[in-house]
Amino acid sequence: MEKLIAHIQDLSPVSAEEISRIEKAFQEKKLAKKEFILKAGDVSQHMRFIDSGALRTYYLDEDGKEFVQSFGIEGWWLNDLYSYLSQSPATQFIQATEPSVIFQIHRDRLEELFKEVPAMERFFRIKMQSAYQAAQHRNLQVKIESAVERYANFRQSYPQLEQRFPQYMIASYLGLTPEHLSYIRRKALK
Amino acid sequence: MEKLIAHIQDLSPVSAEEISRIEKAFQEKKLAKKEFILKAGDVSQHMRFIDSGALRTYYLDEDGKEFVQSFGIEGWWLNDLYSYLSQSPATQFIQATEPSVIFQIHRDRLEELFKEVPAMERFFRIKMQSAYQAAQHRNLQVKIESAVERYANFRQSYPQLEQRFPQYMIASYLGLTPEHLSYIRRKALK
Repeated sequence: MEKLIAHIQDLSPVSAEEISRIEKAFQEKKLAKKEFILKAGDVSQHMRFIDSGALRTYYLDEDGKEFVQSFGIEGWWLNDLYSYLSQSPATQFIQATEPSVIFQIHRDRLEELFKEVPAMERFFRIKMQSAYQAAQHRNLQVKIESAVERYANFRQSYPQLEQRFPQYMIASYLGLTPEHLSYIRRKALK
Repeated sequence: MEKLIAHIQDLSPVSAEEISRIEKAFQEKKLAKKEFILKAGDVSQHMRFIDSGALRTYYLDEDGKEFVQSFGIEGWWLNDLYSYLSQSPATQFIQATEPSVIFQIHRDRLEELFKEVPAMERFFRIKMQSAYQAAQHRNLQVKIESAVERYANFRQSYPQLEQRFPQYMIASYLGLTPEHLSYIRRKALK
């Protein structure tokens, strides 16, 4: 659990005693490749930190077509956050794309942890700010950026993702066909 | 400043000494009707709580057409939150639509206040969660709801707003022409 603790320490210092409380509050989950940790229609009850591996979230349109919504690798949090916060049915599936280990905490347990370890309030205040920024940024991006800009910004913002996820998933995340992405990549790499 | 303090107490209890620190950290601003507290292009440096009055945020498209993005009345927070969090130029104008009194805090002062009054971390952690939910809800609404549904949900969620803002602003917020809104209202009121 060192990665999770280091990540918390980075934003909000915690004592040795607090670390032990945090460690007890999170549960480890091992996921095989292609295994789901959340399915659309279920309510997300946990905040989830990726210790190792890679996962994606996606939703299905009325015709059953997949749209990748977000990616996560070791050191990131991943969730259908709207479902978790509003306690409404998830619109997204969360699926491992590599064998993965995650640490998750139930929302009731997290509420208790906020009282036991006030530094966690600070940590999640900052994480919620980041989540707000990321969501607004993505909404704006989809509206105003061209396909070439979206790909360039994706590579710049997340250089570590391109080798970890299949091209067709990255194309879906960027709102492109695999052929269109492949064309843009060839031009960009020249 | 009783409204602001009551609002904070409601989510995160604070002591008398902490209340006095909070009160010192916020500044009062009086706005005339039509006065701006933020203009597009400027970076939002303050979190703003409305003590009395009413304000709206809007952006301009390339042709200079106004699109109302959000409303605020007494007891609400209002901001171009993306600009505040990312410290990038605001895309929105914030304008008083009634004579208003707001209490605002500079982001540097708020960072200090988090250290002086840890209960404020909890308060803003919860507010940031609400902001995330509201933003995602609005993004979804615009995509999937019909005009009639958007109006019905607006009336249900914010019954207090309809009498406080001109119809053309509410129409703009709902993505409708004033004529279309007027038609939907007449049908709904029958």
